[in-house]
Amino acid sequence: MKLTSEQDAFGHAVWDHYRGRNAFEIIERSDGFVAVTSGPSQYLADVALWSPDEKKALEKHAHGRVVDIGCSAGRHALYLQRNGLDVLGVDVSPLAIAVAKDRGLEHAEVLSIDELSADLGLFDTILMLGNNFGLFGSAAKARRLLGRFKKLTRPGATLIAESRNVYQTGDPDHLAYQAANRARGRMSGQIRMRGRYKRLVTPWFDYLMVSPQEMETLLEGTGWRVAELYQGGGVVYVAVIERTA
Amino acid sequence: MKLTSEQDAFGHAVWDHYRGRNAFEIIERSDGFVAVTSGPSQYLADVALWSPDEKKALEKHAHGRVVDIGCSAGRHALYLQRNGLDVLGVDVSPLAIAVAKDRGLEHAEVLSIDELSADLGLFDTILMLGNNFGLFGSAAKARRLLGRFKKLTRPGATLIAESRNVYQTGDPDHLAYQAANRARGRMSGQIRMRGRYKRLVTPWFDYLMVSPQEMETLLEGTGWRVAELYQGGGVVYVAVIERTA
Repeated sequence: MKLTSEQDAFGHAVWDHYRGRNAFEIIERSDGFVAVTSGPSQYLADVALWSPDEKKALEKHAHGRVVDIGCSAGRHALYLQRNGLDVLGVDVSPLAIAVAKDRGLEHAEVLSIDELSADLGLFDTILMLGNNFGLFGSAAKARRLLGRFKKLTRPGATLIAESRNVYQTGDPDHLAYQAANRARGRMSGQIRMRGRYKRLVTPWFDYLMVSPQEMETLLEGTGWRVAELYQGGGVVYVAVIERTA
Repeated sequence: MKLTSEQDAFGHAVWDHYRGRNAFEIIERSDGFVAVTSGPSQYLADVALWSPDEKKALEKHAHGRVVDIGCSAGRHALYLQRNGLDVLGVDVSPLAIAVAKDRGLEHAEVLSIDELSADLGLFDTILMLGNNFGLFGSAAKARRLLGRFKKLTRPGATLIAESRNVYQTGDPDHLAYQAANRARGRMSGQIRMRGRYKRLVTPWFDYLMVSPQEMETLLEGTGWRVAELYQGGGVVYVAVIERTA
């Protein structure tokens, strides 16, 4: 999906925050659970405010030509661009891409994870930070996209992806949601949700959060494997995933 | 209305904030507009953080026996109780009343503005601060309740109420909502909304916000009149309303 202006809750919040206005991001889950995230300020956060895991993984493993999937306002992409890498940022939010460009990101396009094609050229590094492993949506879609990622990358390519171990919670709302997911044959952390900001509402979409163990299982047979885990943050972790075939 | 535990979004947020947990309050308007309010922290705010208007109006005009309508965690009621006044706090939220009691409010009951009756005894001061003039809901209901308030108060009684001049906005969403209200014969600032916190949702309710001019018009013939306005805050203001008959 790409977001129309009326659906672009994420982008408008980022835009307003970028312009110095008070902004927020509300996430609504399919069971009616709502939460306020640190979204807009986080998407624009300076490197000093990043999780140490994100910073370490980027510094050690990002190489060659990079595509940042779900780049939002471009914090990771701009950091790598400043360090001399060739980076393309893509996001479904037109306004987030507008902010990323305004901040100096040279290559940025409104594209969803489904729209990446060989027309964009080959990449050495794929970024899915900021919990963006979630953009895979489901285990089946993750495996399909990982297959396609092989055609979009060169040998030796690295996927740097962040996820959240959803089992590390005691919140009864979350545990009930996970159990309902499993009962319907979905993964525990397959969250159906939408973003809201003022009158703007994104379409409902699935966002997949997995434990490190589930990630390893999911990658089996895809030609990708977890090479290293950065788990300093506890619940949230960064996986460095290598292309093996 | 009184809120069941599942409807008590306001109370659970206050409770969590009171217990040191991260809490928030989301307001959803009938046109789909959502906003994050400063709710939980504001409801528990120490007097040093109040608007100067609220503090001045309370210090100068609260007297005798007091009822605080929509008292939430009891910040105003506790302040007056500490100053030696006899105060009853009422709120539709069972958990907010639980917090108010835990904080030391001696007289607190789960009651809506519709449920105040002479059984509670007579009052000299009615508080509707924190924008709680809104609890009147509509012009017609305000006039009906003001008539009843005469029977619940002694001669010389004072109503201290806070509202928001909704016309002081340039936000196109708000202006469109106000126009749609007027087209349906509602007051511009008659906001149909509900509160949300995690999975909890209050019923939809009308919350009435009026300009000082509209407040004066609304009070005509009710036996109450605006004696003084505290407008240091600009958009939000406190009205001191005297019983005349």
